[in-house]
Amino acid sequence: MNLPFLEQNGVLAIGGIDVARLADRAGRTPFFAYDRAAIDARVRMLRDKLPGDIELHYSIKANPMQAIVHHLATRVDGFDVASASEMALALDTGAGARQIGFAGPGKERDELRRAVASGVNIHLESVTQLHLVAALGWELGLRPNVAIRVNPNFHVGQSGMRMGGGAAQFGIDAEQVPALLREVDAHDVALVGFHLFWGSQCLHAATIIQAQQQSAELVTRLATDLPTAPRYVNMGGGFGIPYFAGDTPLDIDAVTQAMHGWLPQFHDRLPGTRIVLELGRYLVGEAGVYVCRVIDRKASRGRTFLITDGGLHHHLAASGNFGQVLRRNFPALLGNRLNDAPQERCDIVGCLCTPLDRIADDVPLPDARIGDFVVVLQSGAYGRSASPADFLGHPAAIEMLV
Amino acid sequence: MNLPFLEQNGVLAIGGIDVARLADRAGRTPFFAYDRAAIDARVRMLRDKLPGDIELHYSIKANPMQAIVHHLATRVDGFDVASASEMALALDTGAGARQIGFAGPGKERDELRRAVASGVNIHLESVTQLHLVAALGWELGLRPNVAIRVNPNFHVGQSGMRMGGGAAQFGIDAEQVPALLREVDAHDVALVGFHLFWGSQCLHAATIIQAQQQSAELVTRLATDLPTAPRYVNMGGGFGIPYFAGDTPLDIDAVTQAMHGWLPQFHDRLPGTRIVLELGRYLVGEAGVYVCRVIDRKASRGRTFLITDGGLHHHLAASGNFGQVLRRNFPALLGNRLNDAPQERCDIVGCLCTPLDRIADDVPLPDARIGDFVVVLQSGAYGRSASPADFLGHPAAIEMLV
Repeated sequence: MNLPFLEQNGVLAIGGIDVARLADRAGRTPFFAYDRAAIDARVRMLRDKLPGDIELHYSIKANPMQAIVHHLATRVDGFDVASASEMALALDTGAGARQIGFAGPGKERDELRRAVASGVNIHLESVTQLHLVAALGWELGLRPNVAIRVNPNFHVGQSGMRMGGGAAQFGIDAEQVPALLREVDAHDVALVGFHLFWGSQCLHAATIIQAQQQSAELVTRLATDLPTAPRYVNMGGGFGIPYFAGDTPLDIDAVTQAMHGWLPQFHDRLPGTRIVLELGRYLVGEAGVYVCRVIDRKASRGRTFLITDGGLHHHLAASGNFGQVLRRNFPALLGNRLNDAPQERCDIVGCLCTPLDRIADDVPLPDARIGDFVVVLQSGAYGRSASPADFLGHPAAIEMLV
Repeated sequence: MNLPFLEQNGVLAIGGIDVARLADRAGRTPFFAYDRAAIDARVRMLRDKLPGDIELHYSIKANPMQAIVHHLATRVDGFDVASASEMALALDTGAGARQIGFAGPGKERDELRRAVASGVNIHLESVTQLHLVAALGWELGLRPNVAIRVNPNFHVGQSGMRMGGGAAQFGIDAEQVPALLREVDAHDVALVGFHLFWGSQCLHAATIIQAQQQSAELVTRLATDLPTAPRYVNMGGGFGIPYFAGDTPLDIDAVTQAMHGWLPQFHDRLPGTRIVLELGRYLVGEAGVYVCRVIDRKASRGRTFLITDGGLHHHLAASGNFGQVLRRNFPALLGNRLNDAPQERCDIVGCLCTPLDRIADDVPLPDARIGDFVVVLQSGAYGRSASPADFLGHPAAIEMLV
């Protein structure tokens, strides 16, 4: 198991603080703890390897915790937001409106009004959105900044969540973009960029390389007839992190080296256009853990169950109920028994009164006792905010950036 | 499609109020609307068919909306709760503590303390819970009421979520119950009942009949050595509602007739013991709808997408991401076009920036326009409270009991 956190006398430490002390600091379990040094290390690593003029954006939907958003504000070049409230979060950090991209297939009039008033880059996903934005610009006496979100005409395999190439609710089919560009031109809006999103949670470097090259190719073609090159092309992200046994971490060197290869030609063809990489999970996912406590253990017909005070109301993805077809275990361990040898196989479950509430099935563990800390790794993204917090009315999970 | 709601000039009406007016009353979409008359009709139907001395409980976890809990307080005989906050909800209705059962595999000390202080029936799911409850009783100078939650030694098929017979985090294996009863006897607690839960969302009458008979049999055997018969046996519920094309509604007549058959013998063997039926989804699931609005429509590579202002942040189950292995459509329709003939096949999606956010795939619909109301039926249970409301930061769904 890849352990990005410190270990002190057999106890896991996040941000240099052991889990027991973190629990005391939180006042109780369960909690999410995010390691700011691990986030910084990830950003630094990317800056070192990426071509210098790539803009790195944080996609707030991965983890909208305010402390994380503020922390990243001084480390990334911009934000991608998926709702007006995420937009407000981003603006509150002091980030410039021009550094914020607002995507989403279902933007409401009221949200678009706020976006036009704020001056952020509105990623248009339909003709309807263009008309609304243009009307709102007129109403507010402002010239909206728009980018076109393109549903690519290529698709790439091996992606955790494959997108592009087919029919989609996201963006505008590549083949419809020339007609939309003429419409954009007829309205009083500023076209500032393109946004392509071909997939997410991809661990396969060759797939990402291919998707990026095809994205560059596609945008170059779409931008041919524009009077000026767009200010940016947001190529999405798609960089995956390993969650499950057998997952191989993404070969980031291969991806970044390939970018050094194709970028000069891209700049030759679209001078002045910056590439934006929009990363969420890849920046924060591995930097976070979910910590709950064993509050009971019992034997039932040959199996041993560790019952925790946590559960799917805090961490739906770890329960296997968020986008997984077949349930697989997130990496989980006893945070206060790192040096103890496995002694038994256990089922770790949450406290909810539903059989869906599983944390780890049939895992080898040291002899676990009530009070032990169950730590679920890879929990920095799509954790608390992507979970049904109200389900059954148990207390919410605490979040800490340490 | 089974439509339990009124139709007025082609417009769906919930509680006699058409969806457009309901939207005006709510102030906006999306909203959940629950029909109190439909809930009442369901309770009345059950009272008519069930043997007169069956106690009917509402399982709050199905829908904890306060108005529903208060409404049902005067119509059912008690509540089943799965957390201290659900317990507080139940107590706030004025329900007697003895009419409240508190189940859950992971009850924390603090929750148990509140339960002992309140005097509710604590459904013990482990020896640990017994010891904690006994100690808390001593500490508080109160004699706790406890029931034993049994993990049955039989299992029944055909259940949506099969439980019982195998290893489980729920309850105490039937074979361990005699030893636990001796432990209970050694502590200063009052044994008031048993709780068996064999499964949920079952549409197959024969399975429910078999499970109830086996439950009665099992409890009768477990109670043999008790000095007095337990006050109640909670047999769970398990009554399912049809969600998907091809689902046949539960034959409730068969189930209730069978109860009339086995109940006299049960009373002969355990005089004075009442049977409790704990129903959640079956009482409220069909009485509720989720209403969102078409805010965009677009064609993408041969498919038509209707983009709504709703989504999985309000209704995770309808998106297929809560306990389903293969995604199937919840019944969905255009609430303001009931009389219009289907004209096209559409994909109805939510507003979130994730491909998981689907409402109905490839459904035949009348020509849909922006502003139309998409109504998802069978949405009265495990809707708002079982969804990741914070995901992406869009507004919460409104709830109305009409």
